[in-house]
Amino acid sequence: MREHWLIQPEWSWNQPNKHDPTYVHEWVQSLHTMNNPPELLLYGAPLSRSSISVSGASLYPMEFRRIWKGFATYNIEKNIDLSSFLVGDAGDISMHTTDISLSHDRIKQSTTFLCSKYPYTRTCMIGGDHSTTACAVRGIQQAFPDETIGILQLDTHLDVRDPKIMGPSNGTPIRQLIEENIVKGENIVNIGPHGYYNAKPLVDFANKHHIKIITLKTARKAGVIQTVLHALKTLSEKVDRIYVTVDLDVLDISFAPGVPASTPGGMTTEELFDSLLEIGSHAAVQHIDFVCLDPSKDTPVNETVKIGGYAWMQFVTGCVLGKIS
Amino acid sequence: MREHWLIQPEWSWNQPNKHDPTYVHEWVQSLHTMNNPPELLLYGAPLSRSSISVSGASLYPMEFRRIWKGFATYNIEKNIDLSSFLVGDAGDISMHTTDISLSHDRIKQSTTFLCSKYPYTRTCMIGGDHSTTACAVRGIQQAFPDETIGILQLDTHLDVRDPKIMGPSNGTPIRQLIEENIVKGENIVNIGPHGYYNAKPLVDFANKHHIKIITLKTARKAGVIQTVLHALKTLSEKVDRIYVTVDLDVLDISFAPGVPASTPGGMTTEELFDSLLEIGSHAAVQHIDFVCLDPSKDTPVNETVKIGGYAWMQFVTGCVLGKIS
Amino acid sequence: MREHWLIQPEWSWNQPNKHDPTYVHEWVQSLHTMNNPPELLLYGAPLSRSSISVSGASLYPMEFRRIWKGFATYNIEKNIDLSSFLVGDAGDISMHTTDISLSHDRIKQSTTFLCSKYPYTRTCMIGGDHSTTACAVRGIQQAFPDETIGILQLDTHLDVRDPKIMGPSNGTPIRQLIEENIVKGENIVNIGPHGYYNAKPLVDFANKHHIKIITLKTARKAGVIQTVLHALKTLSEKVDRIYVTVDLDVLDISFAPGVPASTPGGMTTEELFDSLLEIGSHAAVQHIDFVCLDPSKDTPVNETVKIGGYAWMQFVTGCVLGKIS
Amino acid sequence: MREHWLIQPEWSWNQPNKHDPTYVHEWVQSLHTMNNPPELLLYGAPLSRSSISVSGASLYPMEFRRIWKGFATYNIEKNIDLSSFLVGDAGDISMHTTDISLSHDRIKQSTTFLCSKYPYTRTCMIGGDHSTTACAVRGIQQAFPDETIGILQLDTHLDVRDPKIMGPSNGTPIRQLIEENIVKGENIVNIGPHGYYNAKPLVDFANKHHIKIITLKTARKAGVIQTVLHALKTLSEKVDRIYVTVDLDVLDISFAPGVPASTPGGMTTEELFDSLLEIGSHAAVQHIDFVCLDPSKDTPVNETVKIGGYAWMQFVTGCVLGKIS
Amino acid sequence: MREHWLIQPEWSWNQPNKHDPTYVHEWVQSLHTMNNPPELLLYGAPLSRSSISVSGASLYPMEFRRIWKGFATYNIEKNIDLSSFLVGDAGDISMHTTDISLSHDRIKQSTTFLCSKYPYTRTCMIGGDHSTTACAVRGIQQAFPDETIGILQLDTHLDVRDPKIMGPSNGTPIRQLIEENIVKGENIVNIGPHGYYNAKPLVDFANKHHIKIITLKTARKAGVIQTVLHALKTLSEKVDRIYVTVDLDVLDISFAPGVPASTPGGMTTEELFDSLLEIGSHAAVQHIDFVCLDPSKDTPVNETVKIGGYAWMQFVTGCVLGKIS
Amino acid sequence: MREHWLIQPEWSWNQPNKHDPTYVHEWVQSLHTMNNPPELLLYGAPLSRSSISVSGASLYPMEFRRIWKGFATYNIEKNIDLSSFLVGDAGDISMHTTDISLSHDRIKQSTTFLCSKYPYTRTCMIGGDHSTTACAVRGIQQAFPDETIGILQLDTHLDVRDPKIMGPSNGTPIRQLIEENIVKGENIVNIGPHGYYNAKPLVDFANKHHIKIITLKTARKAGVIQTVLHALKTLSEKVDRIYVTVDLDVLDISFAPGVPASTPGGMTTEELFDSLLEIGSHAAVQHIDFVCLDPSKDTPVNETVKIGGYAWMQFVTGCVLGKIS
Repeated sequence: MREHWLIQPEWSWNQPNKHDPTYVHEWVQSLHTMNNPPELLLYGAPLSRSSISVSGASLYPMEFRRIWKGFATYNIEKNIDLSSFLVGDAGDISMHTTDISLSHDRIKQSTTFLCSKYPYTRTCMIGGDHSTTACAVRGIQQAFPDETIGILQLDTHLDVRDPKIMGPSNGTPIRQLIEENIVKGENIVNIGPHGYYNAKPLVDFANKHHIKIITLKTARKAGVIQTVLHALKTLSEKVDRIYVTVDLDVLDISFAPGVPASTPGGMTTEELFDSLLEIGSHAAVQHIDFVCLDPSKDTPVNETVKIGGYAWMQFVTGCVLGKIS
Repeated sequence: MREHWLIQPEWSWNQPNKHDPTYVHEWVQSLHTMNNPPELLLYGAPLSRSSISVSGASLYPMEFRRIWKGFATYNIEKNIDLSSFLVGDAGDISMHTTDISLSHDRIKQSTTFLCSKYPYTRTCMIGGDHSTTACAVRGIQQAFPDETIGILQLDTHLDVRDPKIMGPSNGTPIRQLIEENIVKGENIVNIGPHGYYNAKPLVDFANKHHIKIITLKTARKAGVIQTVLHALKTLSEKVDRIYVTVDLDVLDISFAPGVPASTPGGMTTEELFDSLLEIGSHAAVQHIDFVCLDPSKDTPVNETVKIGGYAWMQFVTGCVLGKIS
Repeated sequence: MREHWLIQPEWSWNQPNKHDPTYVHEWVQSLHTMNNPPELLLYGAPLSRSSISVSGASLYPMEFRRIWKGFATYNIEKNIDLSSFLVGDAGDISMHTTDISLSHDRIKQSTTFLCSKYPYTRTCMIGGDHSTTACAVRGIQQAFPDETIGILQLDTHLDVRDPKIMGPSNGTPIRQLIEENIVKGENIVNIGPHGYYNAKPLVDFANKHHIKIITLKTARKAGVIQTVLHALKTLSEKVDRIYVTVDLDVLDISFAPGVPASTPGGMTTEELFDSLLEIGSHAAVQHIDFVCLDPSKDTPVNETVKIGGYAWMQFVTGCVLGKIS
Repeated sequence: MREHWLIQPEWSWNQPNKHDPTYVHEWVQSLHTMNNPPELLLYGAPLSRSSISVSGASLYPMEFRRIWKGFATYNIEKNIDLSSFLVGDAGDISMHTTDISLSHDRIKQSTTFLCSKYPYTRTCMIGGDHSTTACAVRGIQQAFPDETIGILQLDTHLDVRDPKIMGPSNGTPIRQLIEENIVKGENIVNIGPHGYYNAKPLVDFANKHHIKIITLKTARKAGVIQTVLHALKTLSEKVDRIYVTVDLDVLDISFAPGVPASTPGGMTTEELFDSLLEIGSHAAVQHIDFVCLDPSKDTPVNETVKIGGYAWMQFVTGCVLGKIS
Repeated sequence: MREHWLIQPEWSWNQPNKHDPTYVHEWVQSLHTMNNPPELLLYGAPLSRSSISVSGASLYPMEFRRIWKGFATYNIEKNIDLSSFLVGDAGDISMHTTDISLSHDRIKQSTTFLCSKYPYTRTCMIGGDHSTTACAVRGIQQAFPDETIGILQLDTHLDVRDPKIMGPSNGTPIRQLIEENIVKGENIVNIGPHGYYNAKPLVDFANKHHIKIITLKTARKAGVIQTVLHALKTLSEKVDRIYVTVDLDVLDISFAPGVPASTPGGMTTEELFDSLLEIGSHAAVQHIDFVCLDPSKDTPVNETVKIGGYAWMQFVTGCVLGKIS
Repeated sequence: MREHWLIQPEWSWNQPNKHDPTYVHEWVQSLHTMNNPPELLLYGAPLSRSSISVSGASLYPMEFRRIWKGFATYNIEKNIDLSSFLVGDAGDISMHTTDISLSHDRIKQSTTFLCSKYPYTRTCMIGGDHSTTACAVRGIQQAFPDETIGILQLDTHLDVRDPKIMGPSNGTPIRQLIEENIVKGENIVNIGPHGYYNAKPLVDFANKHHIKIITLKTARKAGVIQTVLHALKTLSEKVDRIYVTVDLDVLDISFAPGVPASTPGGMTTEELFDSLLEIGSHAAVQHIDFVCLDPSKDTPVNETVKIGGYAWMQFVTGCVLGKIS
């Protein structure tokens, strides 16, 4: 068994300018050319044929990198330049065309490989659909077998459909992890469900396993940031490492037309961006992913991909702020 | 004269699963197959050739039902399952191809028929353009000749253009009802007008007839929910039954691209959804309609139709909450 | 040298109905047919080949006028009819097809001409890209050589790129004006920057020249309106006339898909509309422009152009309110 | 009863330059300003609420005139300049918002008025949906009660649905005319039907009334031009004046996305353009219309409207060639 | 192992009107309700997650049936009504969400089941992507183990990529069948390749296995119909049953925007439609499929789905003509 | 003065695989890495702010290269692999943001530089708008001052507008060259004009200067290929080197939605592709360009860019065939 399946993407827009980067594509480095371990490690999992409905989320890792040219490394609100923070791009995991199970396994293996080689580095996986999250967490658990993992999920859905019925598709990752005893339900917090997008039997399953569901309405009453901070605090007291999974369908459909499962009544970008600043600056957060953004359904002006890029930048800004404080 | 013109739509997506419905299309029943009167009665008025500008709102009843598959019967915020609430779908009213006056009359007759047969059932008409509202209210008045009707209108426009000039088009329903003495101006509250979308002479007409106009700015100062509650309270003290008409152009254009007359500066979906919860739970509200959504102008991801479906679900959730409390 | 290059646009939708205008196209008059100086003078600068990226903002002046039919002269929130306020449309400045420098000069000359001829009239220029702002301010300075000019900029970007590198393009107007000593950096306030859209060296330039940068986050803490009011007050104490430049990319991309440089995390339309009411009613504001809206990238329902029209109407309403108070 | 309902459209793009017109909008004159009767008389019938399915064909007369700026008056293939040919634009017939029957009657009356006033002038009506054709022919018959009328129809459909069932909608005009004895079936030739777009009972009706149906396949075997010439010859031997109705759905859907009823397997633009040259030059052709083009469904580059403009230009070129020969 | 996985689609648009069907949705019957074996048997294989690039071809079977309402059962060119021809719809094969191999096997099994139960009935499979063809042919071979199968392929591509490298994806079906000795290369004719869409090594593979490649240019020289007829004749002399596979990417991209792999320089719809008439009327053709049409990429007016429906109708018309002659 | 302004584009999709290229992006080499002079030299002129109307043709060179991945180096019709033909990509000419005249001069200089350095190499410039053609021809003349240049133009328009009026825009290149005595009118052949897209005064200018105009109708009568061959023969007898300029607006709008100036009645892709094969194989053709394709207006499936790539491949195939014969 190969230890990993990472291949460097074909890109020229990433032209690291180590001496004086001003834009993101000049700043992020290829992992293979770095002398020191990065502080944040990026890799793509371009798989979406595991989606219940037709999805082009497999195209997101490429589009995510392409949008870097539109972002400066400087955040004007925090008056901070990110360019001294070391970000290494490990490339994309090579996916098989028709064997989804094999692709899932490669995501697990590659994650284990990266976590084992860079145990003190935070990881950020760019999906792909939400099925990739189960693989990544599985890989992390294998890399750190003695540690407990907690999950903070920003999502409109619970993602606890039954994999025995539909296979390990994008509706099932949380249930996979619970049923495999990789993550306990009580160590999972989901912020974002709202409206009519989770059938009763799925909510029953979540409750039975003590998943903490915080609806958007409830979060807004306390403040979304405060809710996120409280969730991180609670989780960090119970687990060794927190995995944050951002299903971009948590966003309201008016912001995220390019996320097929986004719905009315969802989170605003402001709420998400503010939350990610806190998430990035919290020490216990070791892993994050961004999933389910389908660039092929985006508007002609690429609104959703731009939001995806912004969201990631907020997380990184949080990382840097966390170092300073 | 036939007593009504309702025909069952051709749909398969409505497959009532009476024993254990989980999604809306499994829950809503065909009126013709129900043994008991429904608690909410649904019917479509697919007419939009009466619109001043080109409109495909006639397509909405069909698309409205098609979106049901995307909604669970369970509301996660209120922790309530709607599936024991009896909703009966009476189908769509058959519209004539070129005789708009005849179509309008059929809407009236069908409404009278339904209200007379199910006098204790709330009705919900799915338009169609806003001209259908005048027909429905006329039909209700005929069914309940001894009762006074009040209207709560959520709308960017006053809809008091002169039918003598342009016929009973979608710009005229409120004026029709006033001039026919079916509803008194003082029993009409319109929440939502804003900006530059009502010409001065129309505002003068409304004021002369004591229509209560509450601009969105004013409503937001007191709180949109509080404003809606106050309007319902005031109306319920003056009239026997409240008809709520939701012209979806009350929504901001950034939320509702599929509503041709939507404008900048309008209501957010959150405000509308919260309002509908209150409207549904208020005992005096006996009738509601949702009009002016044109699916043919919606985005490729059907943002507006999804919002339309969510809005209706909020009203129904309100109905169920109203029963409990 | 001709004194100006203004030509009347070919339009029929402007059919002044001097006796009783109800809609904007019936109200705004052609400057050439007015007997008295207007209170607000409108002119278009249809130039966008000076944009760094491909832009059709040159099409905006025409589309801006075409949208007038969709706006009544009456504002329902303020209960005020604008139609007695005198607005004169001077037409569009004739642009050269390939000589951008010549086009820029014509904008300057035409502005000087208009300001000299109507020294007590407020001006409103409809762009065009942001390079036109530098030309207009240059023209104003020539018309009023003894007065100091201050700028209130609503913008996501600082627009202080170096014209020596890329010519007088749309990324450079503020720097042009500073380097030409037409406006001092300390007399410039920019409200709206946020996120990752201004590279560090540009922020350094702005700081060095004492441009007051107020990020959107900061503005929201004090309230956007309060921030605008404070900026106007401060500027009015230092300068003789305030020029307000509204780069519509200040808006969040979810509101303004038709502004190529709009970004996530931007201003809401409600914040912009409220601000313009205050701006219009402030006596020191003598000039305004609206730039960078590209109708060719708008949605099929023209969401952005409608927002552009609304924004202008708010400014005008502010003008009228300012007269009254 | 008013004799006609024609109103001048609000347009500026038509700026007749009588001395030296180069483009179409400089050439076509307003009928009201002409000293002599025109050789071709143009008028619009902006009605499409009579369409079976949602149609914006009512928008075509306006878009048709707007496209004129894109056409020179010179035809390079025939080396002929059209600008000395007198074309008068009578404007659009005022349509009622909700009374379709009234609108239909106004089309008839206006046509009678124009034909009576300019008996030696060819007329060209721009629709609107196909129901307008029946009205126009009725109006012509009233103007020339002693003459027999024949119809050359270029269409994918027979348009002989039963008006008793669906009213005088766009699927019925030919049947209306036959049943009202205004045109005999034997004096109607339809070139263009193909495939599966005419139900058997409708074909039976057409055959029973001796409508000459020439499928596209059959026409192509003899040559489309030859088929058209032969039809014109045959008709001209039987009737006093030929009315040509061009339902643009005769075109293949790959050419005409903006014609809702266009289908695969239809006519190419080359075939239509060549045919119109012959039609225009045939002396017996006194009337023509172009119907069913819905600009709101056109591509972003306005492909179909451009084709509609080209088609009309070919007819006019034919008129001029017919004069010369 | 279940013998098949066919499930009836949820549709209402198919409402067989056995007494007098006029449109296709009134004519095609559900297989389960037929008393006699059908003459043509239809089934869907809604699988496209086996596509190399993102594809929504899995949505085609549903959209294919929905378009039936737009087609009459009568063909005007051949003056023939199809409604007495017995077409049975067996529904769609149930696909697994993540196990592509299992889905492929179900296609095979279902095909075997149908062919065994109705050995004298022609079958028509609606894909899905082109990987489904290999499964269907495998299933046919199992049903008729003693018969040799030949393939007539209308396709821009050879589809002989190596399944050992990328699994049984949509680029590999022909190679799968050759390497499994189910179909001999010499019994395969591919009409349609052109331009630059087949890499040299793939052409070498095809030549080595004696696949008959007829480029579009070559076919046009002899006439596309004549080429098809000759291919059918040649194949019918060598094999027992001919399987025709129509990859709709054989069409030129200007006709088929909704086929992701369509290219410039491809077949016209007229050529395809004419060919299918011949194919349908040829006695040796026992099986056909239509694959690779992705409705989610179609134009707003559904041009490609309409072409797909027309193509199928031509095949059926051919079947009926073949019976008569 | 720098001798040229060519910069290598940022691309990774061009990954020359010199040992065994199969796709175009593996085959075309960077000029800077080649040991021998190429047989065909490619360079981009990404300028379109010189266009009369808004154009994004400046984006074409980048999109042209990106499409290479979709083309094999093998042509199946001619059974020929192009990969041994040496194509060198010199990159794109650096354009100034606002100084169009400077940009034009750089195109000239770069062309002179390339032609002087590789005098025996064919050149292919990828535009940009049509104004770039005048610059390129000027540069060639400077490189080969003793040679006469002839032009074969495939174009719907004559492009002889007056640069004195509108500057050296995209409507003027041919007139520029004639008035500067760089190319004589009698050495210019334009194939493609049709319909109503050239005003009479422009045709008069062309005739006065003896430009040979061959309308599409005329070309089709003799056969488009024969017409092209005859034009090449005639020109080659009069001039030393032929420059072919392909304005992609020569194509019919149904093929080329992404070419803003394309029109109905234009050339088919088949006619263009066949012509380019002949052009490439003709020895006197030393230079070619492809201009006016605006990728930002293309369809979602990139139809026009794919056609642009195919057109170029046909020219290259012609080059290789010309070497063989």
